[in-house]
Amino acid sequence: MKQSELSTLVQPFHVMELVKHANALEAQGKPVIHLSIGEPDFPMPEPVQQALVQAISTNKTRYTAALGLPELRQAVSDYYRSAFQVQVPANQIVITSGASAALMYACLALVNPGNEVLLADPGYPCNKTFIQMTGGTPAFVQTAEEENFQPSWADLSKHWTEKTAGVLLASPNNPTGTQLTATAMKEITAGVATRGGFIIVDEIYQSLCYDHPAQSVLQVTGAPSEQMPLLVINSFSKYFGMTGLRLGWMVVPENLLPAIERFAQNLSICPNTPAQWAALACFQAETLAICEERRKLFKARRDFMVHALPGAGIELHSTPDSAFYIYAKSPYSSEDYCKDLLEKAWVCAVPGKDFSQYRGNEMMRFSYANSMENLQIAIERINQFNQTGSPKAV
Amino acid sequence: MKQSELSTLVQPFHVMELVKHANALEAQGKPVIHLSIGEPDFPMPEPVQQALVQAISTNKTRYTAALGLPELRQAVSDYYRSAFQVQVPANQIVITSGASAALMYACLALVNPGNEVLLADPGYPCNKTFIQMTGGTPAFVQTAEEENFQPSWADLSKHWTEKTAGVLLASPNNPTGTQLTATAMKEITAGVATRGGFIIVDEIYQSLCYDHPAQSVLQVTGAPSEQMPLLVINSFSKYFGMTGLRLGWMVVPENLLPAIERFAQNLSICPNTPAQWAALACFQAETLAICEERRKLFKARRDFMVHALPGAGIELHSTPDSAFYIYAKSPYSSEDYCKDLLEKAWVCAVPGKDFSQYRGNEMMRFSYANSMENLQIAIERINQFNQTGSPKAV
Ligand SMILES: Cc1ncc(COP(=O)(O)O)c(C=O)c1O
Ligand SMILES: Cc1ncc(COP(=O)(O)O)c(C=O)c1O
Repeated sequence: MKQSELSTLVQPFHVMELVKHANALEAQGKPVIHLSIGEPDFPMPEPVQQALVQAISTNKTRYTAALGLPELRQAVSDYYRSAFQVQVPANQIVITSGASAALMYACLALVNPGNEVLLADPGYPCNKTFIQMTGGTPAFVQTAEEENFQPSWADLSKHWTEKTAGVLLASPNNPTGTQLTATAMKEITAGVATRGGFIIVDEIYQSLCYDHPAQSVLQVTGAPSEQMPLLVINSFSKYFGMTGLRLGWMVVPENLLPAIERFAQNLSICPNTPAQWAALACFQAETLAICEERRKLFKARRDFMVHALPGAGIELHSTPDSAFYIYAKSPYSSEDYCKDLLEKAWVCAVPGKDFSQYRGNEMMRFSYANSMENLQIAIERINQFNQTGSPKAV
Repeated sequence: MKQSELSTLVQPFHVMELVKHANALEAQGKPVIHLSIGEPDFPMPEPVQQALVQAISTNKTRYTAALGLPELRQAVSDYYRSAFQVQVPANQIVITSGASAALMYACLALVNPGNEVLLADPGYPCNKTFIQMTGGTPAFVQTAEEENFQPSWADLSKHWTEKTAGVLLASPNNPTGTQLTATAMKEITAGVATRGGFIIVDEIYQSLCYDHPAQSVLQVTGAPSEQMPLLVINSFSKYFGMTGLRLGWMVVPENLLPAIERFAQNLSICPNTPAQWAALACFQAETLAICEERRKLFKARRDFMVHALPGAGIELHSTPDSAFYIYAKSPYSSEDYCKDLLEKAWVCAVPGKDFSQYRGNEMMRFSYANSMENLQIAIERINQFNQTGSPKAV
């Protein structure tokens, strides 16, 4: 039995080793503070929880249509209109098992073996895998801290070759917590369309946005179409706090729907059914109010961290204004530094390796999906460790 | 924007058109009886429902480990020991988003572009897609009604070429409701191992088995290993009535675990979290007793259908002893016959096209995942239609 070439190509999450180590230290009684976390530290909003229980009690537990419940597709369409003032017909919205499945269908529908897809570096580690699974190759476009780690069309077009099929970007991005400007979105989408490529924009952190109203590339382009070859990825995981429910959505040009439907039918049958019914409650005023409260808490934490980190010896040159991540220069090799910080100060932040091909070992990611109290302790410990190299007494 | 070659290769479920037609007739008030259904007509067992609500109420809604909850992996391992007297370490069990994700990871880990994978024809339509998505090619091995539509090692080895990477079989199979014998399992697994290939056995309908105790290929082979290159696929969908929860599992050789983990992490993050906690309740005595009652109901329906269909003009040459399907010869072109039967007798059974490359238009599938009362009415209507070509008065 031979393993496939793909299975050796696909990278593990290197951070897992560090997280295991953190958990082991915790099991030994060490008061580890986790700044490694990629999900909100809040539970599911109460109305969503109730809707989920209701769905289960009324036996909404059978397969649904592969593209998702019509009611939920309509609700997402309504949400785009009310929250973002964009018109996207329900028919162009597909419900998926998290942004993960949406990214997978998008790449399967658009990338051929031998194609290249442009990715901003740093970025979400799994993006390269979705491309590799199609037989395509990720082409990493290095971005600069001073440009908030987002590429311009000039950056992307420089890397466009005969093999390039399209571009995959995230705004807000992980690990950087930074966004594309509306101008950049406009130039990039127009540029990609002119080249006959596609553009996938992952907006999973869209509404966790702190310095201006949440935005969507759809506000710039309107609904995707054959002329505007855009796919927008989103999820109930982050803003709506439903990570473990595995539910997301995508917005696609109408001509791609039959292909997306075939992939969804064949590879997944359908997304989780009770989660789909529960997600309808996400767009109720009561839920949106809860999410807005949480967004404000995230903003307060972001403000705190952005101000406190430099004082504790961690330089920032970008302005993280979204998601719950800060990507910063590590005082020394981030692999070593994160290990030391964990072992000596019991703070678990993660090295850049998973996110970047270029400067991964220079950079590290802090997640502020943790209580303000814990963030304050973490900053004290980081400061102490950076000054003395020794643990703070706790 | 060009669509990928894969997206044109992947087939839609042709049956969907028929089902849409059936739903439209029903919306017009026609009393359609659905014998097209691929999921139990029972709700989730009560203890599983309760466990699901409990998981949600206690906020078990965050991401889990990619390979699944350790508790659930252990519970599946225990279940193999208690129900099938086989020892499979929990470590070799991976929890997945349905059998669907398990089949996907298995093919991604084992099939290279250009490889062939042998499939029994007829079979589950999505199997070919899982292979195609790796760049591999499905090689269909025709099976005979008189041999219960299951291949022998002699059949398979005849089709083994230099390109063959392995075999994917289902026992019990969909659409046939028939199983591999223990002898065939023994010969096939040994034969495949000798050739240096892999064998995937989909046992999703394992415990819906009516004429002898439920069986597993693992009873013949023991736990998978480098020497026994076997992957067993299973699911909480059918026997445990959790279709919409999207939860399944796979049993894999230890050496494949790192690759499977990388695919799971990158492509899905994890299976649905509350569903994983709820699934623990599947193996409680109370739940198993409920599932056993339902199995008996399915058996009664199977007995009824197997006896009644020939009397109503539908020939059977195989002995369906499992799942909830009967695959039978259609009186004429199954595409036309199923359409006529739907329009004139309001019975929705499905043509063989989705399941078979060879004799799809000769064959059709009946599902008996419907009440005995409805099955009786359906048989009357089929009989009337076959005798007179006109609808039965209802
Ligand atoms: C940028 C980005 N995209 C997609 C995902 C996948 O999320 P999910 O599948 O839970 O929606 C994540 C998860 O961390 C992410 O950070
Ligand atoms: C033979 C077979 N395998 C796998 C599946 C996938 O089921 P699930 O993903 O719900 O576990 C099905 C569904 O009908 C099936 O019939």
